[in-house]
Formats: sequence, structure tokens, C-alpha cells
Amino acid sequence: MSIESTNPGAGPETPQSSRTVVFVAYPQMGLLDLTGAQTVFWAATCRLAQLGLPGYALHTASLHGGPVRTGEGLVVQTRRLDELSNEPINTLIVPGSASIRQAMLDNAPLVDWLRVTAATARRTTSVCSGAFFLAQAGLLDGLRVATHWLMADMFERLFPKVELDREAIFVRQASVWTSAGVSAGIDLALALVEADNGRDVAMQVARRMVVYYRRPDNHEHWSPLLQSQYSIAPER
Amino acid sequence: MSIESTNPGAGPETPQSSRTVVFVAYPQMGLLDLTGAQTVFWAATCRLAQLGLPGYALHTASLHGGPVRTGEGLVVQTRRLDELSNEPINTLIVPGSASIRQAMLDNAPLVDWLRVTAATARRTTSVCSGAFFLAQAGLLDGLRVATHWLMADMFERLFPKVELDREAIFVRQASVWTSAGVSAGIDLALALVEADNGRDVAMQVARRMVVYYRRPDNHEHWSPLLQSQYSIAPER
Repeated sequence: MSIESTNPGAGPETPQSSRTVVFVAYPQMGLLDLTGAQTVFWAATCRLAQLGLPGYALHTASLHGGPVRTGEGLVVQTRRLDELSNEPINTLIVPGSASIRQAMLDNAPLVDWLRVTAATARRTTSVCSGAFFLAQAGLLDGLRVATHWLMADMFERLFPKVELDREAIFVRQASVWTSAGVSAGIDLALALVEADNGRDVAMQVARRMVVYYRRPDNHEHWSPLLQSQYSIAPER
Repeated sequence: MSIESTNPGAGPETPQSSRTVVFVAYPQMGLLDLTGAQTVFWAATCRLAQLGLPGYALHTASLHGGPVRTGEGLVVQTRRLDELSNEPINTLIVPGSASIRQAMLDNAPLVDWLRVTAATARRTTSVCSGAFFLAQAGLLDGLRVATHWLMADMFERLFPKVELDREAIFVRQASVWTSAGVSAGIDLALALVEADNGRDVAMQVARRMVVYYRRPDNHEHWSPLLQSQYSIAPER
């Protein structure tokens, strides 16, 4: 097969793409938290189009719409979240931020929007410290969740009603999925795609993205393989 | 350590960030090709700032500047490439595209810009099918290179003077580095960071990004681990 022959008709604009995925953008969000998961859903949509199946309609949206500056400096264009509130949302995805505490202070209305919208979305998910937003909205109370290992202590201090799993790459609790740091958003998205479309589609996406290994949900963050490459004592 | 305490001073705007990295943007470029490598250089800059060392100044630039729509649909803001032509470029990074042939037709002046600018840049690199742009500019003649496995046949047809290594995740040939599909751009960027700053910094970045395993340059694209998870006969 050739990507080119399938790409034009397989993008997010494909009318068949009936499952709406909303990426919740805000200033200082993590760039790869957003784009890793988004690329998985896009590649899945390409593959599903080849199979004659509906894919995903991808929307990146923020409170006010317009340009949003990521923590890494790249500026991305966004729609307004309230434009999307009226259509059924299949999956809400909240990226994290390296400055998550400040981001939550700067985007308090986003917490309210998440609390209201998550009640009707089929799935609510987070990448990296995006779990802080879900926890702040009260959506994680009593649930087991994952977040970036660097922010685990802060998370437990701020959200004592939430059970943090420090080993998990991603955790599913009913309709709420949370994932660990940055690249774990790719693993989370592959798991969501597999839950929707089966293992073959998810594995074909991983292969197209040249993902080395689709990690099981309980894989430790700092893998033995990476550890074995690490030549000095780790900071822990 | 806390990301938050280091993030504000460690971004691309840090005046110490003396090594200029230019991400060459164009319509229909691959989103993760751009953002995976950019996140690695950003995280390296954060880590280097902690060590009191200069990092990287990251610029995403296109022929005309302004908003550029990626193949996945997300629109990113860019500077004009000619604004950057006068400053010394440490590393040029050219993302790929799922519609690479059309992208080269639509961006012929980009090939000329690359031919001229690569002569003075310290390193010229590509992610995924970005190698097509470098080859079109004549920068890869006689070199061994990597690209996305899905486009290997097309690459060999179009560029018979270039030696394609179908097994490599990334290939270094003097100042020219090329990498395989999509996520391999993260491996490439980690290797560039290691070449500049040593193994410890690169491994700390990989750990912060929760990258499962930093692949050696000769790792096959479709890993035995992924293969072992793949339940049906692969399309090859």
C-alpha cells in the first residue's frame, strides 16, 4: 500500500469520520502530549478509510480559540471549545504541561468546562500531567490513575482522594483513561484505537508510526532497557 | 527536581540558547515528525539550563511564514526561513510528509533553499520522508540514508544515486543525518543531543519524555517485540 494514495481521503475531514475526538488545548500545554495522540488517531483514520470504515474527526480546541502557545514554544491554531459542546464527543483528551500548577491557575474555566463536558463525553482521558486538570474537576476521585513520574509527589499532595499508580503507563477506569509522561500519550491513544477498532488496526498504526513497542498498561515508566543504557546513578 | 522550577528559564527564549535549530515547515508535513524532535531539543535545553550550560534556540520556519497546515490537520505558526538565513544554523531538521511527492512539487523553492543553506549549516537532518527533500536537493548523492519503510521503493526509484538503508532507524554520514518513519525522529534528536552534550543528558531527556527505549541506529523498523504482538500476517 502507499500512504499517498490513502492520505487525501483519509484525513480528519473525511465525512465518514463520525467519532469526534477533542484535544483540549491551553497555553503552556505539552506539545508532544497533544501531537503524539493526535497522530495515532489520524493514522487510525487513514487505516480505517482503507478498510471502508469510519474513522475519527479530530478537533484541537481551547477556551478562547485562536493561536495557543505550547510549553515548547510552538504555536498551534485552535477552535473554541464551546463550538464543540453541542456535538456528541467520543473522546476528550487533555494534554499535560511542564507548568501544570500555573496552567491550572491560568485556566480555571477549563476545569469547569471539563466537569460539565465529561458528563456527556463517551470517554475522558489525559496525557502526562493532564490528569491534574481532571482531578481538579473532581473527575478522578476514588479512581486509580497515571501521570508523569516527575509530578507524582505533587499530584498526591494536591489530590489525596485519587489513587496514583506510579508504575502505570496508562490506566483505564471505566470511561476515564489516564496516562503517564509525554510519549505515553501514544500508548494511550493506541489502546483507545484498539478498544474501538480491534488489535489489528492498532498494531498497523503502531507499525506505520514506527513505534518500537506498544507498552502494556502496567509497564514501568523507566524501563529496564532504558535503565540498562543509563550510565550514571539516576536521580530518584 | 521539578520541571516547573526549571521550565520558565529553560525554554527556547533563553538567551544562553546559542545553538540554533531550524525546523523546516511546509504544508502537509508530518506533525509528529516536527514535534517529536522539537520536544527532545526543548527537554535537552531545560536539562542543560539546570547544569548552567547553553541549550538550543528552536525555530519552526516555512518559505512564506505564517500558519502552516500539517498533514494531520493541525495548523502551526511559522517564521519565514529567509529571516533565519543570516544567523549560523547548528542543525537543520526537515520533517517528512505522507504526501511527500506532492509536497515536493508544491514546495520546489524549498529544495533550492535547502541546497544553499545546508552548505553552511553545521548539520542537515531529516525525519521520515524528509529525506526526499534532501535527496531532491542533491544533498544525499553517494550517501547511505534512512527513510520511512512505506516509501522505500519510491525513494529508490526517484533517487538511484542514494544508498537507502532499509533497516536503519537513523543514519549518520558526516554532517548529514537521516531517520526513519515518524517516531524515529525522536531517536534521531536524542542521538543529536547526545553527540552535542554527552550520553547522560540524552538519557535524562529520554527518561523525562518516558521514551521506552532509545533505539540504536541499526535497529530494524518493525521490531521483533512489535512483530511478536502482531496477530495477523503483516503487509510487506
